[in-house]
This record gives sequence, C-alpha cells and structure tokens, in this order.
Amino acid sequence: MSSIALIGYGYWGKNLARNFANTENAILHTIVDFDPSRLSSATKLFPSIIVSDNLDATLANKSIDAVVIATPVFSHYKLAKAALMAGKHVMVEKPMTATVAEAEELIALAQLKKLVLMPDHTFLYTGAVQKMRQLIVAQEIGVINYYDSTRINLGLFQPDVNVVWDLAPHDISILYHLTEERPVSVTATGISHLNNGIENVAFVTLHFQSNMIAHFSCSWSSPVKIRQILVGGDKKMIVYDDNQVTEKIKVYDTGYTAKSDEEKQRILIDYRVGDIYVPKLETKEALAGIASDFIQAITTGKEPVSNWKSGLDVVKVLEAAQKSIKLNGKEIRIE
Amino acid sequence: MSSIALIGYGYWGKNLARNFANTENAILHTIVDFDPSRLSSATKLFPSIIVSDNLDATLANKSIDAVVIATPVFSHYKLAKAALMAGKHVMVEKPMTATVAEAEELIALAQLKKLVLMPDHTFLYTGAVQKMRQLIVAQEIGVINYYDSTRINLGLFQPDVNVVWDLAPHDISILYHLTEERPVSVTATGISHLNNGIENVAFVTLHFQSNMIAHFSCSWSSPVKIRQILVGGDKKMIVYDDNQVTEKIKVYDTGYTAKSDEEKQRILIDYRVGDIYVPKLETKEALAGIASDFIQAITTGKEPVSNWKSGLDVVKVLEAAQKSIKLNGKEIRIE
Amino acid sequence: MSSIALIGYGYWGKNLARNFANTENAILHTIVDFDPSRLSSATKLFPSIIVSDNLDATLANKSIDAVVIATPVFSHYKLAKAALMAGKHVMVEKPMTATVAEAEELIALAQLKKLVLMPDHTFLYTGAVQKMRQLIVAQEIGVINYYDSTRINLGLFQPDVNVVWDLAPHDISILYHLTEERPVSVTATGISHLNNGIENVAFVTLHFQSNMIAHFSCSWSSPVKIRQILVGGDKKMIVYDDNQVTEKIKVYDTGYTAKSDEEKQRILIDYRVGDIYVPKLETKEALAGIASDFIQAITTGKEPVSNWKSGLDVVKVLEAAQKSIKLNGKEIRIE
Amino acid sequence: MSSIALIGYGYWGKNLARNFANTENAILHTIVDFDPSRLSSATKLFPSIIVSDNLDATLANKSIDAVVIATPVFSHYKLAKAALMAGKHVMVEKPMTATVAEAEELIALAQLKKLVLMPDHTFLYTGAVQKMRQLIVAQEIGVINYYDSTRINLGLFQPDVNVVWDLAPHDISILYHLTEERPVSVTATGISHLNNGIENVAFVTLHFQSNMIAHFSCSWSSPVKIRQILVGGDKKMIVYDDNQVTEKIKVYDTGYTAKSDEEKQRILIDYRVGDIYVPKLETKEALAGIASDFIQAITTGKEPVSNWKSGLDVVKVLEAAQKSIKLNGKEIRIE
Repeated sequence: MSSIALIGYGYWGKNLARNFANTENAILHTIVDFDPSRLSSATKLFPSIIVSDNLDATLANKSIDAVVIATPVFSHYKLAKAALMAGKHVMVEKPMTATVAEAEELIALAQLKKLVLMPDHTFLYTGAVQKMRQLIVAQEIGVINYYDSTRINLGLFQPDVNVVWDLAPHDISILYHLTEERPVSVTATGISHLNNGIENVAFVTLHFQSNMIAHFSCSWSSPVKIRQILVGGDKKMIVYDDNQVTEKIKVYDTGYTAKSDEEKQRILIDYRVGDIYVPKLETKEALAGIASDFIQAITTGKEPVSNWKSGLDVVKVLEAAQKSIKLNGKEIRIE
Repeated sequence: MSSIALIGYGYWGKNLARNFANTENAILHTIVDFDPSRLSSATKLFPSIIVSDNLDATLANKSIDAVVIATPVFSHYKLAKAALMAGKHVMVEKPMTATVAEAEELIALAQLKKLVLMPDHTFLYTGAVQKMRQLIVAQEIGVINYYDSTRINLGLFQPDVNVVWDLAPHDISILYHLTEERPVSVTATGISHLNNGIENVAFVTLHFQSNMIAHFSCSWSSPVKIRQILVGGDKKMIVYDDNQVTEKIKVYDTGYTAKSDEEKQRILIDYRVGDIYVPKLETKEALAGIASDFIQAITTGKEPVSNWKSGLDVVKVLEAAQKSIKLNGKEIRIE
Repeated sequence: MSSIALIGYGYWGKNLARNFANTENAILHTIVDFDPSRLSSATKLFPSIIVSDNLDATLANKSIDAVVIATPVFSHYKLAKAALMAGKHVMVEKPMTATVAEAEELIALAQLKKLVLMPDHTFLYTGAVQKMRQLIVAQEIGVINYYDSTRINLGLFQPDVNVVWDLAPHDISILYHLTEERPVSVTATGISHLNNGIENVAFVTLHFQSNMIAHFSCSWSSPVKIRQILVGGDKKMIVYDDNQVTEKIKVYDTGYTAKSDEEKQRILIDYRVGDIYVPKLETKEALAGIASDFIQAITTGKEPVSNWKSGLDVVKVLEAAQKSIKLNGKEIRIE
Repeated sequence: MSSIALIGYGYWGKNLARNFANTENAILHTIVDFDPSRLSSATKLFPSIIVSDNLDATLANKSIDAVVIATPVFSHYKLAKAALMAGKHVMVEKPMTATVAEAEELIALAQLKKLVLMPDHTFLYTGAVQKMRQLIVAQEIGVINYYDSTRINLGLFQPDVNVVWDLAPHDISILYHLTEERPVSVTATGISHLNNGIENVAFVTLHFQSNMIAHFSCSWSSPVKIRQILVGGDKKMIVYDDNQVTEKIKVYDTGYTAKSDEEKQRILIDYRVGDIYVPKLETKEALAGIASDFIQAITTGKEPVSNWKSGLDVVKVLEAAQKSIKLNGKEIRIE
C-alpha cells in the first residue's frame, strides 16, 4: 500500500485526487496547497484526508511514500527535487521540468536514490493512443512518414510558459510512444499577441533522419476547439479526432505508391482508396491508468509507460522549439 | 465583345471554357490543346468553337483579343509571354509564373504593351472571401492578428511543383485581399515522401512587421479533406470551412483583452465568448465572376480584383517558401 | 432551510444528490435505497448524510421537509402518495406517474395538503430551452407551426415502460413550455423487438386545433445517438442539437410565404434564406436550476417552472400515445 | 442502338439528357418541352438533337424507340399511355403514376404490347444502396427489424402532390430493394401549412406481418437538409447519411440479445458495441446506371432493377399514406 501526498489542488489536481482515491494499493494521504479555499473544498469532498499548506512537514512525514506534483511548470524542479531528497517517489505534471538541465538533474537524483520519477503524460493511457500503438506494432499502418497535430482552442493564457509548453507535450509524448525514431532538429515559429514574450500561437516542425516529418499547430486563440492528429503510414493512415465522443480513431486503407524510380520522376502515382475502419476503444479513464501505473512502478519496480525518458525527451523538444521561435524559425539541433 | 482563346483543356480548362462560354461580352473562339482526345471532347460540347493544336497560328489570329492559360506552372511564362508579344490580353492559371523574375518580366511587358495581365486567383470571387472582406472593411473583426489555413487532402502529386505551389496560392491571395500588410519574411518546412525533391507535405509561416502571423498547412497526403481558414481579429474571429455546403463562414464574437500593462505581465486576461453569426453568402460561381472581371478589365480598363500585383505577391512568397524548405526552415526575407 | 430525503440512488439519483447537496437553503438529509452497495457508495461520497433502507421511518422523520423520488415509473405513485400523506413536499422523476388517474389523485392530495408536487422535467432548466422560450416570447420566431424531435440512441431497455414513456416526456414538457396550445389528439406507432409488449422504437404525432403539428421519433435501438429538435415558426426556424457541446441552438432566418389566396393555389412560394444566428447559452447545470426551483417553491410558495400541470399534461399524452400504438395508430382524443 | 425521346427538360430532365447522351447503345434523338426557353437551352448544349413542342409528332416518329418522361406526376399516366400506345418503351419519373389504378392500367398495356415500362427509382443504382443490398444478401446484417428515414430540407412546394409523393418514393423503393417483405398496412400523419390540402410535413409508418417497422419523416420545411436512413438488423446496424461526400455508409457491429424467454420478461439485455466499418462505395453516377439498365432492358429483355413491380409497389404505399393522412392516422390496409 503506497501513501500519496498530492501537491497542488487546482483543476488538474482535483482529477488526480479523485483518481488516486480510487486506485488499488494507493491511499491519498495528504493534499497540499497554499490557497485555503482550495483546501476547504478538498476537505468537503475527502473528509478523511489531511490537508496542509506546510510542504516541509509533509515531505518530512515518514508515512508518505510518494508525491504527485500538479503545480505550475516553473515550480516542478524545486518541488520534485525536494521530494526526491526526502526519499519520496515522484509523479510530476507535464512538462516534467522547465529546462533540460533541470530534468537531467532530477533523473540523476532519482537513479541515485532508486526512486520512481515519472511525468504525467496522461494521453499515453487513453484507449485511442493505445489502439494506435497496437495498430502500428501489428504493422497495420506501415512505416510512419508523417504526424500532424492541430491542438487549438480558446485557451487560458499561462503566466510562465508559452502555448508550446502547454499543448505540445501531449503530441511529443504520443509521437514518441508510436515510433522509435527521435528528431534530429526542431524548427518553430510563433507569436505573442499580448507582447509579453509568451507565445499564444505557435507552429513546430520536427525533422528526422528518415523520411518522416512531424508538425504541431498550437493555439490558445482559436474560437473553435480542434484536437486532431493525422498519422500517415506507407500502408494506412490514421485520423484521431479527440473531440469525437465515440469514434475517435479512424483507420483509412488509403495510400499511394510509385512503382519504379523512373516512374517517380514522372510522378506516376498509384492511388488506393479503400474502406475505413473505426475500432472500438478501451473506455477506462486515462488518469486511472497512469495512477495505477505509478503505484505499480513503486511497488514492483516495473518501468511505467510514461517514464523519465519520455519526460526528458519532451523537455528537449520544448526547449529547442522555444529557442527556434525566438530565432524566427532557425533550425535547432537536438543532440 | 472580346474573343477568347483558351490554352489547355484539362480539368480546370473545362471549367474555364464553360464559364467563358456563358460570360457576357465574351466569345469563346478557340480551344488549344496538344491532346487530340481532349480536343474531340471539346468539340462534342462546343461544336461551334475552333479547336486547334497550333499555338502559333492561334496567337497570330487577329480576331482573337485575349488568351486564357490553363497549363502546368512551368509553361506559364513562355505561353503568357508569347501571347503578350502577339498583343493579346492574358489571364493565367495560378501561380502566375514559376519564378519572381518571370513574373516581373511579364508585368513589364504587359505594361509596355498596355495589355491586361491577371492571374486566376479564383477564391477572391467566392461569396465567402467577399463576405470576409466586407466584414473586415466594415471593421467588424478589428485588427487581424492571425491567419491560419489547413488545406489538406489526398491530392494529385504534381510533376513540376510542390504542394506549396499547388495549394498556398489560394491562401496568399486571400490573405492579401483581406489585409494591407505584406510579410517581411517566410519560414517553411516540408518533406518529399517520394524522395524526388517535390514536397507533398509542407508548412509555411509568414512573419510581419506588426503583431500578425500567418501559417499554411499544405498536404497531398491526408486521407481526410480539410479546407479551413481561421482569421483572428482583436474584436472577432472568423472560421471559414470551405467543405461546408451552406454554412461556410462563422463569425465568433469572441476575444480577450489585457486591461493594462501591469496586467499583461500577470496575464490577467478578460475572456469574452458571445454569439456566433453565420452570414448568408453570395452563391454565384466564382469562376463566372473572374471571367466577367477579365472581360471588364479588357473593355473598360478597370483593374481586376485578381490583378498582376496579387500575382507577383503570390510568387514572391512561394519562391521564398521553397528556398526556406530546402534550408530546413531558414527565415527568408521578402524585399 | 429545507431538509431533503432522496429516494433512489441509481444513475439519476446520484446526480440529484450532488445537486441538492450544493443547493442553497437545502440540506440533503437522508438517502433511501434498498440496494446496500448503493448505500455504501453514498456513504463514501457523503459521509455526513444518513443512509437508510427504511422508507417508513424516513417518511416519519419530522425533520425531513421534502422528498425527491428517483425510482422506476411504476413506483412513483405509491411513493409520492406516501410522502404527501406524511406531509412532505414532493419532487418526482419524469414521468410523474404511470397513469393519468394516478397523477390526478396525487395533484388533488397535494392541493388538499398545501404541499408542493412537481415532476423533474429537467430540460426546462437548460440554457437551450430557456433561450428558445425567450426567442419565442420575444416574437422572434413567429407562430410555431411544427415541432419535430428525434431522440434516439442505443438505450437501456426499461422493464416497466416503453421508449415513449422514457424519452417523450422531455419533448412534451419542452413543447408545452414553448407554446400555449395543447393537442386535441395523439397518433402513435411502434414496435417491440423483444416481443414483450414494451416498444423499443416508436413514433408519436400530436394534432392541434391550429395549423401546428408535433412529432417525436423515439428509439432505444439506434447505433447513433441523435438529440435533435426542429421548431418551425412562420418567421424563423430553430434547430436544437443537444449533442453539440457549445453550439446547441441555431436560429435560421428562413421562411416562405404565399402572397395571396390565388397564389396559394398555384403554390407560388416566396422563399427567404437568410443569416443564421447561434446565441450564447446559459451554462448553469439544469439540475441545479430545478433543485433550486423546488426549494423556492417550498419556501416561498412560488409556482415552479416544472409544475404539476406540466406533469399531468405529459402523462396525458403518454397514456394516449400508448393506447394509439396498441391500436396501430388510431387517433386518440385528449380531453 | 436505341433512339430516345425525352419529354420534359426541367431540372431532372437535364440530368437525364446528359446521361442518355453518354449511354452506350443509346442515341438522344429528340427533346420535347412546351417552354421555348428550355428548348433553346437544350439546343445550345445539344446542337445536333431535335427539339420540339409537338408531342404527337414525336410519338409518331418511327425512328424513336423509347420515351423518357420527366414531367409533373399528374401527367405521367397520360404521357406514358400515349407512348406505350405508340409502341415506345417507357421510363417514367418517380412516382410512376398518381394512382394505383393508373399504374395497373399502364402495366397491363406494357405487357400486352411487350414493351419495357420502368419507373426512375434512381437511388437503386447508387453505390450506397448497392452496398447495403450486398451486405444484407451476404447476411452480414441479419434479419432487418427497422428502417427509419429522415428526408427533410427547405424543399420546393409542389403544385400537384404532397411531400410524401415527392420524397417517400426514394425510401419505399430502397426498402423494397433491401427486403423481400411487403407491408400489410400504412399509418400516416401530416399537415399543410399553406392550408391548400397539400401536406408539406408528413410522417409515415409501414406495418409488417413480421417484427419489422418502417418510418419516413418527410418535410419541405426544415431549415437543415437531412438525408439519413437507419437500417437495423439483428446482427448489425447501418447508418446511411447521403449528405456525406465520401463516408455515406457506416456499418455498426452493434446489437443486443435477450438470452432466454424468462430473461425477456425481466429485460436482461446483453449489449454489444463493436467496431464500425465504412465500406468504400462505387462512385459511378446513379443516373448513368439506370439509363444503361433501361437500354439493356430494351435490347436484351432483361428485367431492370427498377422495374414496374417496384413502380406499382411505391404507388400503393403512397396512395395508402395519403388516405391515412386525410383520416388523421387511420391504419390503411394494403392488399
């Protein structure tokens, strides 16, 4: 049985609390927040759980095994480091940290202390992403040659990070879950309509050694909400529309081939447009899956699906994308 | 009465023929193509029209006033130049030419000869674009601060130009029709899945002096067809979905403002989400509009909506985008 | 402060509990159910609330002012009668009772005892229905001449009532909220695919003295979920699509008129197709609205929006529709 | 080679002309209409075809083999009879005639004269209906137990027939093409908002000996256009949305079963919700298919898919539906 302290009881913290309260082999022990009204709202819903605004005392509490951090990005590093230093396993909201250097330091510390450190890449636990991975692993889709995501809506402007840090972690972690290959460089452009240096609209391209390309459109300024990912393989193509209630994934038996090199020059393309297949998806709540994966990682040592490698990979791309935006789209290498 | 020769009787040429045949003060006089089967199909539909595979003879024919060119991009310059040299007014399929230098030479020639030279930027004559322009001119939308277009489908790979040259001319000409401002630079990325140097997926960002950004997603490799443009103003936002039959334009009374500079730092945003308005659009066929505009330009000297400036502007962006793609997203200035 | 006992802690009971727990001037005092697992789940969420399987003791409790009944239809009458006899105000799940006779008896009893009796016609408290009523009251829509509802999905077959009793109460109560007129007769058809006499697909037409018609398509056997209502006025038409997240109501400035009697014969219709308007809707949860309305009715004597007249009207139509189905569509008068 | 005379060059006549002009073994010989402007428009498009306002002369022309009738419903019988009397094969717009008696007389005459008589039930030749039939014949769908069609839009009010005669022929002919069973009775309701006795909104239910039900919603007064058919089988269900451009047919691997008779009483239903499959459809124009089928019937004697039995069946249901509407939904038997 693992005893959990949750730090941060905002919008996402509430979802985490509800899920950890229902996770087998987990006890939601303490909720920490500095806003008294949030703590009283936590008490109303979970009368038996300790609420506190004292972080140090919470981390010093020997009966707490693990800490779940759901606070703004700039605070992730400091809080996760303190928790690891206090010997607690850590799950931290995405993105894991605000810089690659911070991520690397936390990872080294977790390895030294033999503690679990994992980011909360929730989407990896959705039925839709699981199904896409199954299809790709089963070689139904073929070699992936593009990933194109549109993730736009009228979003809350965040005070410490731009729209790429807010929305692209979903896509980077999903993309890395679907393919083995890692990008060699990143190109990004964006704009801050409030002129405060924090972009609210941004576009990111990932370049690969192979013939693959990935692109993310991110916006807090769209009047319509779109959550759509296209995954193109050389056998089939997938459209993942997360706004759909039941038909999120469509698999298109669609493609084109050039028969010979000579034909490539003349662009003689054979098109194939076939049936579409809408697979039934697992409907278990994704947050329940990640909560359970965290507890298993703690108790059995199993590597979680959303692990520190994924956390580091995401921060590397975000850091490069931000650098590229500030340099008007200059290509930034990822080593 | 203007007598027209149409060069190129492929997919788009057929649409042009049908429209010029129905345009007031125009006579469709001759159709030129080098494919005999296309000529016989033209004869079947237009028994009274001359069909020919002899371009020189057609251009030498004194009774022809104007030439409409609907051939592959690489041939535009040569054909348009020959037509202008022969003293004919010219309308040419988009993009107007394959390079900026070609465009500038044609423009100089047309001015010298006092002939009309116009590109076929058909979208400027749609009810949807006309309505957007009306709303912007009437200051309903406010200052435009972004334009984001997704124009993707399972498209025919073209032998001489990449997907940007095929699809982005629509967006560049629409954008320029809606705003006065011109970009200072272009950033673009893309990939050729056939490894023949002709990109089938590409992403283009336009940078401006002001706080505006424009972005185009172009793809011939999407299993779903999307034709969607977002135009964000500081008063209202427009979504233009060209796949809709009747409700193409939606105007969102939606926005956000930061009240003071201090608040900007703290990102205290006032959100406003209001009603949506779906204006009724003019349903006249756009090609009929541009055909009539060409005839008027010839007979009255009136500048057409789709004019040579627009033609040149489009080619400038296309040339810069292509350069940027080949340099992995390097920013290319537009002078 | 009104003290509430909730009878029935199934799917809908849980929603009622959550809302009454948050309603001003209300205390959720007791939850009654005969299923121990439901009671323990209630205790987990509401540790301070009494749970009980003893209905008589609950009704005998002097500190309880009102009873909310969320049980199967066949039990409504017995439970509501017992509650009224015990001097409690009563809100009862829709439809209010299983027969008109039962409804009339409960109404007489409530009037005698000067107690509130109201059905839970939740939809009357949605932003969408409120907006439709505002538009109609403001004479934006004109004279209503049809109401056509499609309410179909893969629904749970109910053991005691057919699909009309399950789904049509929503439409009857909405229709009656939007227009003053009451139907003179009902025609209905349907089928029971399980051959148990309980129809899972049914179609109901309401006939009026005026030139209005209303029709409801009800099905538990559709693979797609549709919740769509068309309201046609002689000035404008409304489409209410409850599956939409944000754009539920569309008002079409669309119509037709016959200019003269002679023209009517020749059917010379003037069509008008104008703009569409998507009004912003109140987003407050409807159940919170009805809970608060019940408490106000108890404390101030104000008539609730969802009142016993509406409850009786609904049951009258349901009873007539059922009779008509069993007689293969025979017209049944409503007195 | 069959020589065709087309009678009626209105909206649908133009489509028929274009298709017969392109049909193998057919020659579009003459177009008859009484409106001179229509005839001159026909001449413009088909300069080599004879146009005429003289019906008798056309029917007397020995070089004409067959007549295609695309005129208002009330004229079908008279025109078809004259054509058959003149020894011409006949294809007639749907519905075949305005009464069952007329249909029966034409059928007897065609049999006597050994001529082809077929209605233009175009939908039977669409890729969507062909695919549905294939799936049903292959026993993929199981026993059909409901057919529910919604066919509504802002339609042209017709001078001689109500909305059921205009729109329901599509559904009746499709339904009969998909199942062998014929209805025992019809129930229908409707209203005429112009008070001229011609209903613009109507609802029709077909009752069968078996456990099947069919229902059609027909309206000329809906601001939105819907063309949707649900076909429920006991194995799978089909949704056919004709407004979709490419994904018209969706097959849902969805169902429910009651395990035993005792369970039926207690309504223990096993639900099954599985994958969805969107088959690729034949995209050949349906009118080309029916034109070719007519020519084959003439030249080879093969029975066309849209044959006189289907034509008669449709008129029987229409006549019964009209009778039922006038009697407020009274059940009308079909012998």
